[in-house]
Amino acid sequence: MSQNLAQLTYGIVGLGIMGGSVAKAIRKNIGGRIFALDKNDDFLRDAKNQGVIDDGFAPENARKMLAQCDVVFVCIYPRATLEFLREHKNDFKDNALVTDISGVKAMLQQDFDSLCPPNAHLVLGHPMAGGEKEGFSAANDEFFKNHNYIIIRQKNQGAENDDNARELLKNLVRAMGFSRITEVDSETHDNKIGFTSQLCHVIASVMVESAEDPEITSFGGGSFEDLTRIAMINAPLWTELFLSNKDKLLAHIRTFKNHLEQMERMIERDDHDGLQDALEKVREKRIQMQRFKESRK
Amino acid sequence: MSQNLAQLTYGIVGLGIMGGSVAKAIRKNIGGRIFALDKNDDFLRDAKNQGVIDDGFAPENARKMLAQCDVVFVCIYPRATLEFLREHKNDFKDNALVTDISGVKAMLQQDFDSLCPPNAHLVLGHPMAGGEKEGFSAANDEFFKNHNYIIIRQKNQGAENDDNARELLKNLVRAMGFSRITEVDSETHDNKIGFTSQLCHVIASVMVESAEDPEITSFGGGSFEDLTRIAMINAPLWTELFLSNKDKLLAHIRTFKNHLEQMERMIERDDHDGLQDALEKVREKRIQMQRFKESRK
Repeated sequence: MSQNLAQLTYGIVGLGIMGGSVAKAIRKNIGGRIFALDKNDDFLRDAKNQGVIDDGFAPENARKMLAQCDVVFVCIYPRATLEFLREHKNDFKDNALVTDISGVKAMLQQDFDSLCPPNAHLVLGHPMAGGEKEGFSAANDEFFKNHNYIIIRQKNQGAENDDNARELLKNLVRAMGFSRITEVDSETHDNKIGFTSQLCHVIASVMVESAEDPEITSFGGGSFEDLTRIAMINAPLWTELFLSNKDKLLAHIRTFKNHLEQMERMIERDDHDGLQDALEKVREKRIQMQRFKESRK
Repeated sequence: MSQNLAQLTYGIVGLGIMGGSVAKAIRKNIGGRIFALDKNDDFLRDAKNQGVIDDGFAPENARKMLAQCDVVFVCIYPRATLEFLREHKNDFKDNALVTDISGVKAMLQQDFDSLCPPNAHLVLGHPMAGGEKEGFSAANDEFFKNHNYIIIRQKNQGAENDDNARELLKNLVRAMGFSRITEVDSETHDNKIGFTSQLCHVIASVMVESAEDPEITSFGGGSFEDLTRIAMINAPLWTELFLSNKDKLLAHIRTFKNHLEQMERMIERDDHDGLQDALEKVREKRIQMQRFKESRK
């Protein structure tokens, strides 16, 4: 497998905001030949007109595209990713790297062995970037700059090939702009992401539900907006993510509720010192998190 | 009372991030003569050296300062504000406008009549800006730009004087950079702020408490950081704010918990359609809020 990224052929499956940004980041930072597959003709036409992709393929021509690609990014919803990998298991180029962007890995992990293409390398991954926008028009080549990338290490897969494939993916995403790459198993991924991503989206959504009226922002200093920006949510995608990581997400909700109830009780009983002490600790912990993050930039 | 803002003498009580920003915003946008009172000599010296204030006063010289000021901004903690107003009730210049910045008004409202200076005008107010920083060095003259200001309208005070005083305060804060000024009674203020500000700070703090480790940000795409930035909290101040708005804040916590439990139950029972429908509504509501906010800019 060639490590010269500029000489590879890339295939993007799904040219929405994520796949589109993958294509644009590769075009800008790497070069190579870029193909994309999407059921939306407009996305493909726009991407081609803008010089982001070299050619576009409709879903019925998937095989034709996959046969030519050294690297395939599957950038569609989790369940659709599972189906795509299953359907096209035998359609990849020899030695190709195949990767995905799903926010929850349990579904793919469960069937991992049966999804692995016999002649190519499947490495699950997760670009930690998102937003309320959708579609190719929202994609941009700086979308991933300084963001985190998580690569899933398969515990029961010791093959050298797999190490090479992960190494290629790491080089690739670093070139695309991601600054911190973390390798973990899929169980750890789903647990951590259940907290940093899904629980945050649940909380933000519940905050918006709890708001009395849309004019509430007249009374805001920015806190409410910061806290709820992510509630401009892609409902079908997040429904799928919440439910496919159900057990871990529910455990995080319960932990959160316990802590909330502790704080509620301190307020109820006017526990000034307990509350102040808790808030001091929170401040210290959050500042530590900030420092940790900056030390890793 | 002169409406020519540039010819007035301003007195700032407490030269931390808020009072310091008030002073800087007046200096930059209005002019006038600016005095400040603080127990911290360094704040006063820095402010004078930087040309932000014309003179600084130690707390024991409060009377000397107040006797000269046409407008007094009391920029200290809520309970300290109450005590300051009580102690200096008879020390203000005739016809002066006296205002505060407390995040909760109940405490001041309860004693409002007894706090009103006999010869000056007390108008409660709330600049909706804040952050994790503290002290005069964190103050800046753009801190209030495009932020909300809330002015408390006293229901039982129909006097013409009071209208004039509120009018002066409105002109003043608009000149300082605030873009949206809302007038409400103190009960409404405390209820709305209990939601947009205090509940948000509770939620953010509880999220940080619930985090397993400071390295959790390796797994974040920004949601967790956005949601918890306000948890870098000034613990003594927020303890006071939470407890002085206890009943309203607890009611908001209960509403939030009810909505959270509804979503939790939908996830538990795999209610795909119910969840997707709820998230669609949340998205729509949050987008409406954004539109409302932008329409008021």
